[in-house]
Amino acid sequence: MHIGIIGCGQLARMLAQAGAPIGATFSFVVEPGADPTPVKGLGQQTPLRDCMTPAELYAALDNPSVITVEKEHVDVPLLEALSAFCRVAPNPQAVHITQNRSREKNFLNQLGIPTVGFAQADSEQALRTAAQQIGFPIIIKSEEAGYDGKNQWRIRSQADLDTFCAAQQHSALDLVVEQWVSFQAEVSMVAARNTQGEKTFYALTENRHQNGILLTSRVPAPHGSEALSQKAQHYLNTLLDALNYVGVLAMECFILGDQLLVNELAPRVHNSGHWTQQGSNTSQFENHVRAILGMPLGQADLRHHAAMVNLLGIEASAGQVASPQTTLHWYDKTCKPGRKVGHINIQDECGKTVDDKLNALLGVLYHEQTDA
Amino acid sequence: MHIGIIGCGQLARMLAQAGAPIGATFSFVVEPGADPTPVKGLGQQTPLRDCMTPAELYAALDNPSVITVEKEHVDVPLLEALSAFCRVAPNPQAVHITQNRSREKNFLNQLGIPTVGFAQADSEQALRTAAQQIGFPIIIKSEEAGYDGKNQWRIRSQADLDTFCAAQQHSALDLVVEQWVSFQAEVSMVAARNTQGEKTFYALTENRHQNGILLTSRVPAPHGSEALSQKAQHYLNTLLDALNYVGVLAMECFILGDQLLVNELAPRVHNSGHWTQQGSNTSQFENHVRAILGMPLGQADLRHHAAMVNLLGIEASAGQVASPQTTLHWYDKTCKPGRKVGHINIQDECGKTVDDKLNALLGVLYHEQTDA
Repeated sequence: MHIGIIGCGQLARMLAQAGAPIGATFSFVVEPGADPTPVKGLGQQTPLRDCMTPAELYAALDNPSVITVEKEHVDVPLLEALSAFCRVAPNPQAVHITQNRSREKNFLNQLGIPTVGFAQADSEQALRTAAQQIGFPIIIKSEEAGYDGKNQWRIRSQADLDTFCAAQQHSALDLVVEQWVSFQAEVSMVAARNTQGEKTFYALTENRHQNGILLTSRVPAPHGSEALSQKAQHYLNTLLDALNYVGVLAMECFILGDQLLVNELAPRVHNSGHWTQQGSNTSQFENHVRAILGMPLGQADLRHHAAMVNLLGIEASAGQVASPQTTLHWYDKTCKPGRKVGHINIQDECGKTVDDKLNALLGVLYHEQTDA
Repeated sequence: MHIGIIGCGQLARMLAQAGAPIGATFSFVVEPGADPTPVKGLGQQTPLRDCMTPAELYAALDNPSVITVEKEHVDVPLLEALSAFCRVAPNPQAVHITQNRSREKNFLNQLGIPTVGFAQADSEQALRTAAQQIGFPIIIKSEEAGYDGKNQWRIRSQADLDTFCAAQQHSALDLVVEQWVSFQAEVSMVAARNTQGEKTFYALTENRHQNGILLTSRVPAPHGSEALSQKAQHYLNTLLDALNYVGVLAMECFILGDQLLVNELAPRVHNSGHWTQQGSNTSQFENHVRAILGMPLGQADLRHHAAMVNLLGIEASAGQVASPQTTLHWYDKTCKPGRKVGHINIQDECGKTVDDKLNALLGVLYHEQTDA
């Protein structure tokens, strides 16, 4: 049971930490410029070199029985080439679809899964036409390479758009224009599907972002409902089968009345599923490992109330943030402003205790209070 | 937050696995003849050599801020010497008391905590006198160096005793003679106390042994009651304070009507607390790490029904034993007959599901059924 992970960040770390107890071993592909400290001691590290053939990479990973990814921006042709040597899960096609916002949204819409209105734009003219069709306010995003709120621009008016276009002058455009909806809340759901097609779904999670980066998660979702949870499960169920997906898939949505608009998919374990480490019998990390190894999935039921707060550039010590209701997860990374260096899970039978604890931690860590 | 562990077996492994996410690092003292594979990759290993001074050992452990143990049979003078360099938790005195059965029972009785009737015997004459005083049947145990049912003899009659004495001829005797009670069940409780004296108690656990080795645990204890749980908590509470104990302490007891007779203490995380990995918000391993680092302890509440089955010399693969209700913990050891190579935790909201799953696993693994 040897697993190769393309990537060496905190998701790879937590996959290996969850997989070790069940007897899995790991090796990691370290991409140029990546910091491998999160996976230190957890398995062999293989620097990815341009000159490497897939066979060489596979051998350097010590011939894993399955290869997986910890992010969507990986080289899909490489994944396809590696498929000749062992199972690649999720499959390269699923990763390919999620790498491009329009491709992903078209795929969703084809399956009858609603998204915000959107249009592709590869020129200034196309951008202006799209803005007119959709109507202000809009959000412009790069088609690829955007995450944690990077490469996104909120455009409120024609004047904003003119400014934006002036700044982009002479750049090749590869953008998607999205309708800006006044959603009630951002939620996500994480699900797993194993090689036999068995599926399990985690609870609908409400997320709060700061500067485009996830700050907190809360389950059960305060703005959720049984109907919305069912809708999310139905969409994910459809997606997992349509993609013949193996592993954990995350789906981020906006709540708009009784509608759930899918904003983004992530073909991997997801930050909004970190609460599952303490809040569920089987974490998303363990279930990803189980899924890709073809094992029965573990129970994903929410145990009680749970929350998560990210440590963004904050060197919190375990002693400082520990309490009976909290568990620190530290990634062993160097602290830099805004960098995800750890998270804290909060859990209790009582929802108010979780909310109070979350507010207290936000106060201590970020000197702020939530409205939750 | 660097911790030195004296020992390198599965308990050290699971302590390190639980401590890594909260930012603790580990190093391990490998005693002569010990197999260090369970802690491979989890930290630096230091072989213990006779010629080593405590200062050299402390330096070889990379100057930990606290040193702990994964078993009771450690060199107490060494622990005392190491106390000059950093905190040793639990303290050497607590370890010392638990190393000797009579010493431990006397300590318990002095605190008003009941045990079975017992007497020390350092000669054949003393042994015969003790047997007469206590009355057959009895159990003879070696004072020290006995664990997992080793060095224990059940003596039913005078004839048995004569045979035993004949076999022991010319040996130096260092024995304890215990009353053989017809207990209703064997139970245990695990508790933690941190450096500030805060305590937390896990649920009363019912244990079943096979040839003196723990085979299964089940919580809540089928033969338990609120009154017995309170009694166990009261005893542990007394012990933790009396020993000025820091870390996890395990207490094994017999249920005899409404009485709880303490059979044995273990100054460490304990096999009968392995269910806490999935069955509680904070495992005994994480709480031991929290306790010795002086952090607030995590919630120890039982979430629902749980059980554990040990893998004794059985190379069970994760795929073979996995189910939605089960989680494998594999120790990465070579499989030998009777050797503890892993365990499986079972958990569900429904007690019958846990019982059925436990029986099914015992059937698959050991070709047997429990009466549970």
